[in-house]
Amino acid sequence: MLLRGRPRALGAATLLLLLLLLIGFFLFGGDPNYGRPRPRGAAAFDGDQPADPGGHNHSDCIPPPPPPKCELLQVAIVCAGQNSSRDAVTLVKSLLFYRKNPLHLHLVTDAVARNILETLFHTWMVPAVQISFYNADELKPQVSWIPNKHYSGLYGLMKLVLPSALPPDLARVIVLDTDVTFASNIAELWALFAHFSDKQAIGLVENQSDWYLGNLWRNHRPWPALGRGFNTGVILLRLDRLRQAGWEQMWKLTARRELLTLPATSLADQDIFNAVIKEQPWLVQPLPCMWNVQLSDHTLAERCYSEASDLKVIHWNSPKKLRVKNKHVESFRNLYLTFLEYDGNLLRRELFGCPCPPPPGAEQLQQALAQLEEQDACFEFRQQQLTVHRVHITFLPHKPPPSQPHDVTLVAQLSMERLQMLEALCRHWPGPMSLALYLTDAEAQQFLRFVETSAVLSARQDVAYHVVYREGSLYPINQLRNVALAQALTPYVFLSDIDFLPAHSLYHYLRASIEQLELGGRRKAALVVPAFETLHYRFSFPSSKAELLTLLDAGALYTFRYHEWPQGHAPTDYARWREAQAPYRVQWAADYEPYVVVPRDCPRYDPRFLGFGWNKVAHIIELDVQEYELLVLPEAFTIHLPHAPSLDITRFRSNPTYRDCLRALKDEFHQDLSRHYGAAALKYLTALQQPRGP
Amino acid sequence: MLLRGRPRALGAATLLLLLLLLIGFFLFGGDPNYGRPRPRGAAAFDGDQPADPGGHNHSDCIPPPPPPKCELLQVAIVCAGQNSSRDAVTLVKSLLFYRKNPLHLHLVTDAVARNILETLFHTWMVPAVQISFYNADELKPQVSWIPNKHYSGLYGLMKLVLPSALPPDLARVIVLDTDVTFASNIAELWALFAHFSDKQAIGLVENQSDWYLGNLWRNHRPWPALGRGFNTGVILLRLDRLRQAGWEQMWKLTARRELLTLPATSLADQDIFNAVIKEQPWLVQPLPCMWNVQLSDHTLAERCYSEASDLKVIHWNSPKKLRVKNKHVESFRNLYLTFLEYDGNLLRRELFGCPCPPPPGAEQLQQALAQLEEQDACFEFRQQQLTVHRVHITFLPHKPPPSQPHDVTLVAQLSMERLQMLEALCRHWPGPMSLALYLTDAEAQQFLRFVETSAVLSARQDVAYHVVYREGSLYPINQLRNVALAQALTPYVFLSDIDFLPAHSLYHYLRASIEQLELGGRRKAALVVPAFETLHYRFSFPSSKAELLTLLDAGALYTFRYHEWPQGHAPTDYARWREAQAPYRVQWAADYEPYVVVPRDCPRYDPRFLGFGWNKVAHIIELDVQEYELLVLPEAFTIHLPHAPSLDITRFRSNPTYRDCLRALKDEFHQDLSRHYGAAALKYLTALQQPRGP
Repeated sequence: MLLRGRPRALGAATLLLLLLLLIGFFLFGGDPNYGRPRPRGAAAFDGDQPADPGGHNHSDCIPPPPPPKCELLQVAIVCAGQNSSRDAVTLVKSLLFYRKNPLHLHLVTDAVARNILETLFHTWMVPAVQISFYNADELKPQVSWIPNKHYSGLYGLMKLVLPSALPPDLARVIVLDTDVTFASNIAELWALFAHFSDKQAIGLVENQSDWYLGNLWRNHRPWPALGRGFNTGVILLRLDRLRQAGWEQMWKLTARRELLTLPATSLADQDIFNAVIKEQPWLVQPLPCMWNVQLSDHTLAERCYSEASDLKVIHWNSPKKLRVKNKHVESFRNLYLTFLEYDGNLLRRELFGCPCPPPPGAEQLQQALAQLEEQDACFEFRQQQLTVHRVHITFLPHKPPPSQPHDVTLVAQLSMERLQMLEALCRHWPGPMSLALYLTDAEAQQFLRFVETSAVLSARQDVAYHVVYREGSLYPINQLRNVALAQALTPYVFLSDIDFLPAHSLYHYLRASIEQLELGGRRKAALVVPAFETLHYRFSFPSSKAELLTLLDAGALYTFRYHEWPQGHAPTDYARWREAQAPYRVQWAADYEPYVVVPRDCPRYDPRFLGFGWNKVAHIIELDVQEYELLVLPEAFTIHLPHAPSLDITRFRSNPTYRDCLRALKDEFHQDLSRHYGAAALKYLTALQQPRGP
Repeated sequence: MLLRGRPRALGAATLLLLLLLLIGFFLFGGDPNYGRPRPRGAAAFDGDQPADPGGHNHSDCIPPPPPPKCELLQVAIVCAGQNSSRDAVTLVKSLLFYRKNPLHLHLVTDAVARNILETLFHTWMVPAVQISFYNADELKPQVSWIPNKHYSGLYGLMKLVLPSALPPDLARVIVLDTDVTFASNIAELWALFAHFSDKQAIGLVENQSDWYLGNLWRNHRPWPALGRGFNTGVILLRLDRLRQAGWEQMWKLTARRELLTLPATSLADQDIFNAVIKEQPWLVQPLPCMWNVQLSDHTLAERCYSEASDLKVIHWNSPKKLRVKNKHVESFRNLYLTFLEYDGNLLRRELFGCPCPPPPGAEQLQQALAQLEEQDACFEFRQQQLTVHRVHITFLPHKPPPSQPHDVTLVAQLSMERLQMLEALCRHWPGPMSLALYLTDAEAQQFLRFVETSAVLSARQDVAYHVVYREGSLYPINQLRNVALAQALTPYVFLSDIDFLPAHSLYHYLRASIEQLELGGRRKAALVVPAFETLHYRFSFPSSKAELLTLLDAGALYTFRYHEWPQGHAPTDYARWREAQAPYRVQWAADYEPYVVVPRDCPRYDPRFLGFGWNKVAHIIELDVQEYELLVLPEAFTIHLPHAPSLDITRFRSNPTYRDCLRALKDEFHQDLSRHYGAAALKYLTALQQPRGP
């Protein structure tokens, strides 16, 4: 803080203040519980005094020194798989909500978590957050020799190897389990490093259960620990000191020795940390209990939080997680749900007064946004087109399909109001799917529960759900399609829409057709799946082409948009399809927007088309200009189910600006097409300019 | 904190700590900026030193004494009308999010705000929050003589009369404008009362603009103030001292005198507070700037927040509110949006370690919930039936309809996915409506924007929207209907559903029919509006009964649920209706669920029916057992538009437990009916037991 120009009285006050702080630090230094090696074997807090086993000590009452402004805080998290990645995101949201400092997150991940979190942070664009990834699979050999019974598996043990895995110049780091939730500013935790004596290297909160006291049941023999031992859900690590003290040899030696008499670790890394600390108690600096309030089944945590009005970090360290039985779990759950459902976009707020480089791409984005003109009829479209949506790929557990040369992934996108289509879709399409869901953070949780409670959906591991977080008022239909398309893992994709149900046989028929047509080679084709529609939401789905034709003749089915927009599918030539026995080629015509099967590397959708209108038409033009053959399959069909008009189509109908803008965007699309493809693009422009029907 | 059983070293440390705190207090006491009367006319901080006019003083750096644990904090808010009530709720959400103390909210409200906030807090059931209301209209005469140009109007001035309006034994209160957002624990602000000297009575943050310096434009003549003056968006009031000092006379005298030369207040109460303080500077205790970071158009607030990493309270004190032009407004807006969209249900968390009486009804609720059996097929139903949903009535501005003896309000309920029905409904029904919306807090904001951007909806002042906040997995259809019904203000109600569009003439026809049938007197009747359906979502709505019959004959319309559930409307007797020229009476039959017009005091819907199934059927039975005549109106009709099946109906179809439970609930309903109505209820049970069609 600058003091120039202040009256003298203020200067004097500041001096007094400095004095006060100095006295404070001096008192801290002289505190008998801080700053001195602890006698070997002594319990961390009050020994086993039953009056206060929750891990209290007087330091709860001393506010830590003010958090160092703008200091970069280092955080390490081990994370593997889809579920753990979701947990890590919730933790990070709580962290970011309260933080006031720049952060560097060190993420030790398997390939799955890396893929998810890399995409997520890249699209999240949070200012003043650096991310580094470390390959957990490379670290595995260092811990895989340790037999472990804990549910966290091998990854739970990886915290032990952080001193060697993290960069050698990294001196301090806060290590967090993915099942902790912050309820305060992490700088206050970081400030506790200042309480470490010259030799202390590990800051930990006492374990809030009687586990390490032993005798919980007959033959219960825990690993050795000081008193109640420590919990490793939140660790302050002086990496520099651990390296210097020969940490790697130290813990391996201890672990090997204990494993001579104990069969395995029960609580993963925590058992080993405790065994080492039992032998080298000078290593540990006990932390106030509220920095790791442990909600296990028989937790003693209440003794901590009934006295502290201020809870800092909640730790869901029961395998039951949120379903743990605890008198106050409802209150803790509310805090957790806060961040589970918190709109992560709101965390894109800058830190005031800390000079931090903007996240990659943020400056260009700002410039592009600044160049938009509010008067432009397309202002909203252009603004939204520039929006970088936060993307969480493979939000739920997912098994990639086995590599097969003719396999097809169904690609579609949806928002909350089409969720009820998913079960039917799963029944109709037994193959892999890649679905982009446009959701808020809270809706993503509703979606998760929806899948978990659905027997049909939870049985499927080959459906990949990619959450694209909502932002802006227009539905970014083509951006969503591109996310789903980019995540498809088979050589072919069926580009569908969520309100269509394919023929039950379609998946197998498509694979067979791809093989027969020898599409694998040089032949560039888009296979057209003819589209139909029903107006009844209860109807019996035709099990064959013959049945479909009967329904069509009876007026129970129509060709798709027969009443409203026949030109969208006219080139498919339904009359020819009725009789066709073999695939037949059709020619592009204006406004054609069939549902097609194409190689995965097909052109992307044009993201300038948002909401309703022209989003598929432009894509088919791209396919045509790139000389994809349009081949209609004689036995393929898909049927559109009825639904209320979307808000976007309602807007389109009622809003002339919306229509004006769509016209402008079409023109720009054609200009870009001409620029890119030259004379080959001429026919589309000509088609556009010809007068047409309704 | 209890210290028993601690080792001696800890005791010593505690003594040192106490010493430290004592030194701190001593230093505070000796601080030249605190604790002494300020020389008359001196500026609050640095005079007009341009180097740091943002209101900094060194006290930003001294952490206030630890917040008093469990002390009841007193907060006063003046609030009038629907918009201000919405703002107040957002403020309270931010307050509750960070608070760790019990709160007593003193709400000075007009009748509209009282009605809204009383319902809201009653249903919110937040532990450790007391609410008191004060009638703003009674206070009006005390300030209405002051000419005022500020957008807050008369209510802005009411902060002046709080010392006399609030209970005489209330000594301290924090006064907040509804446009502030908390970013920290209010106990820290409360703790600043400790900094007051013996005489100081008003704690304020310096105004973060040059307004009171004058000369912003030619002839700009602000009210007198010390230097930049103070902002009254956040005030710490020592009510006891103000009363003792003769505050009422003091401010009135000053205001009268200034109004001899100034035409009116420009900034309402703030002008008068500043004029009084200019004369009696000993009254004021300046507060650190971050307790009222003012985001007006030409704010100097940046000087505050660029240095403080910790912002405590944000004040949207521009008439443009969130649309204010400010370099960093995006970041502040994110904080505001956090609470705007925050799930208020999550704030129902108890305070640990503070003994507080539970909110009214909370204990009975807990007991009832505890008695439910998880094995019961209806567990989910019963749990949700007990849920007290937070209700925000008249969420948007609303003008009650003029009192007319035959007027009818359309009553319906909806959730987000039916929002697009509202415009069409407004076009079809020109009369008053009372609609219950089942939304999350975030969806309520989307809904707000939806209405604001719709010309049709924003033109209507006679549509009352009542937000019922989502909780639980079943759609509480009958609870929603009851909320909408309870808020209808006309003598009659048309009990409709959101996916129906009434005949354009229906509103006027119903009013005429009610008058002709002389329903105002003793005649107890339910007027049946025959229901139809279309399967096409683009269709031309019939403008008369004749047109409707033509469409019916052409197969473009059907009678409602003709295919799926004909018994639901069979007793309406569509064949008779075709020919009818006058209202005709029909008899109840099993499963009858017509859409009816009834007096407002009709029986409520049975809240045990949730989600899909039997929710209307039970209500019609109630009407019939209470001997309402069922009269079908010959010219009335309403038409159901197609939509995708709701999640609830999907669940009903796929889940046998759901169906079992519905059967159990029906049985219980009949038992209750027999208990209540005796033999008169027998026919419903008999009807239930007879074998019936599909």
